[in-house]
Amino acid sequence: MTRFVLVAGTTETARIDGISAAGADRKAMAHTPSADAELIEYGRLVRSPVVPVSPTGCPTPAAVTRAVQERVGFETLVVDAGLAEPTGAATVDVGAKPGRDIREADPVPTAPGAWVAAREFGRDLPDDELVIGETIPGGTTTALGVCRALGVDIDTSSSLPENPVDLKREVVTAAFTASDLDPGGAAYRPELAVRFLGDPVLAVVGGLAAGALESGTDVVLGGGTQMLAAAALVRHAGVANPLTVASTTYVAGNADVRGVAAALDCKAVVTDPGFEKRADTLSRYAAGEAKEGAGMGGALLLAERAGVLDGLGDGTLEVVERVGSADGP
Amino acid sequence: MTRFVLVAGTTETARIDGISAAGADRKAMAHTPSADAELIEYGRLVRSPVVPVSPTGCPTPAAVTRAVQERVGFETLVVDAGLAEPTGAATVDVGAKPGRDIREADPVPTAPGAWVAAREFGRDLPDDELVIGETIPGGTTTALGVCRALGVDIDTSSSLPENPVDLKREVVTAAFTASDLDPGGAAYRPELAVRFLGDPVLAVVGGLAAGALESGTDVVLGGGTQMLAAAALVRHAGVANPLTVASTTYVAGNADVRGVAAALDCKAVVTDPGFEKRADTLSRYAAGEAKEGAGMGGALLLAERAGVLDGLGDGTLEVVERVGSADGP
Repeated sequence: MTRFVLVAGTTETARIDGISAAGADRKAMAHTPSADAELIEYGRLVRSPVVPVSPTGCPTPAAVTRAVQERVGFETLVVDAGLAEPTGAATVDVGAKPGRDIREADPVPTAPGAWVAAREFGRDLPDDELVIGETIPGGTTTALGVCRALGVDIDTSSSLPENPVDLKREVVTAAFTASDLDPGGAAYRPELAVRFLGDPVLAVVGGLAAGALESGTDVVLGGGTQMLAAAALVRHAGVANPLTVASTTYVAGNADVRGVAAALDCKAVVTDPGFEKRADTLSRYAAGEAKEGAGMGGALLLAERAGVLDGLGDGTLEVVERVGSADGP
Repeated sequence: MTRFVLVAGTTETARIDGISAAGADRKAMAHTPSADAELIEYGRLVRSPVVPVSPTGCPTPAAVTRAVQERVGFETLVVDAGLAEPTGAATVDVGAKPGRDIREADPVPTAPGAWVAAREFGRDLPDDELVIGETIPGGTTTALGVCRALGVDIDTSSSLPENPVDLKREVVTAAFTASDLDPGGAAYRPELAVRFLGDPVLAVVGGLAAGALESGTDVVLGGGTQMLAAAALVRHAGVANPLTVASTTYVAGNADVRGVAAALDCKAVVTDPGFEKRADTLSRYAAGEAKEGAGMGGALLLAERAGVLDGLGDGTLEVVERVGSADGP
């Protein structure tokens, strides 16, 4: 059986001006992972105040993941990797707390413990395959930090049409200054990379994937930049099993997903959901907004396997229509 | 859509000698609700050390609930109503903490808050119907306490073949002495009844059922004595909507489920899974052990609706065989 696992958490790195589009404003942004979890579990909000949208109204990729789940019917599970606001979704606890700004000296002290707990949990899950997604505003910046800490070359993608690359690099440079780590200094020590340059979600995704692979479970990392960072963590944990990164043309057209995946000895799968054909706000994905998140790339791979991918571009996506017009619960 | 909700928690009342059979010994007993939640979510243990069995080896009713889930395919959800040990199941948080021995002055201070949070959560869930089950060792004693606090007459059932009725009454009498409440003194104040004579699971089941009913969701309470106490809480909260209590012949043969349900203006449904025909340890249910718990009565009602009830007595129940022979994860 295949299970979709959403790893949901927060980092205060997202509060740096101009870093993230995940949530229309800063207040909404802290609710984004909690709301994404509810959308994926229930197809609507339960405790969260607003449906996450980008500043121009582009709906969260969690709506796409849920729409695919309703078509394909896979099992879902949410892991709390440092949620900052209440969620009505049921969550598994691995001891993660919200991450602080990586420009602080020890931004994610819970990361090593969460890494270990997630790895054990990944080993014990009974599934044949895990498709892992993430939701954490600001996550591409911490992903860049983690890759540089491991000594892995990576481009970053962004939820904003204009990727603030220079800002991200500045933040990561400041993070190295604040910690005792140099670029490449956390090679083969993934729990240090996530603790000093990363966020709790990367710690949990990396640990979960490593543990699942070690116990013979197939793993698909659904996403772009952040999942490449997670794949790097898995490899630097000494886990060499086959591993797939599932992304979309919206990310892979902008960042070198295939190249980085190949360098990490991972398979890259890139789907094209054809959202440019849609009349609703999802068409903005094709214009470079939001791009990825909440395991959308992984869900779309499951849609492709089930033979329903082609229908998503022009078909009815009930969830997207329902949440796209919602002003709250 | 119908969703099965397991409300899982603990009370130290269960540690009183002779009160409960939920778990072969006291140490295992604290793990029982966490393990039941894992069995229902995954069909096997994840973080829990042992499969809950009675002192003579009768498997937890959670195994039956899971076996039915695998046949019928309903959605499941676990609410943390004061778990004392880790669980690998995803859980919804309503602020409940483990209950203390009801012979203490204020044994469940989190009950009123959990009642309110569960009621709001029940209002917001999108389902057409909730089937609610519980798992809490010692729960029939606190159920007796709650009913007496509300002024509702009830027999209690037991997970032991010889129901220690006198002991339960003594404990409840001591609980009234320790609190400032007299029998009947919490009538129409359900949150006081659960706080001073009850446990966190009853608070959450009652709140959840009340909120769901208020928002037009159908509710089935799956269980015996404890679910009658939960139904009493709902009625004493002023919620008069139709409400069903689903139990089995193993409970209803010993306690007056139909009579109490009728007095509370609830519909009683009693199923007979025919376990006396089975060659495995499940046959002990027919001999008066375990009887009920983990929403088994509710799951069996769903089995009956799906037309698979008759097959459970002589058919293969993979989960029961798998966990029944397990010595741990």
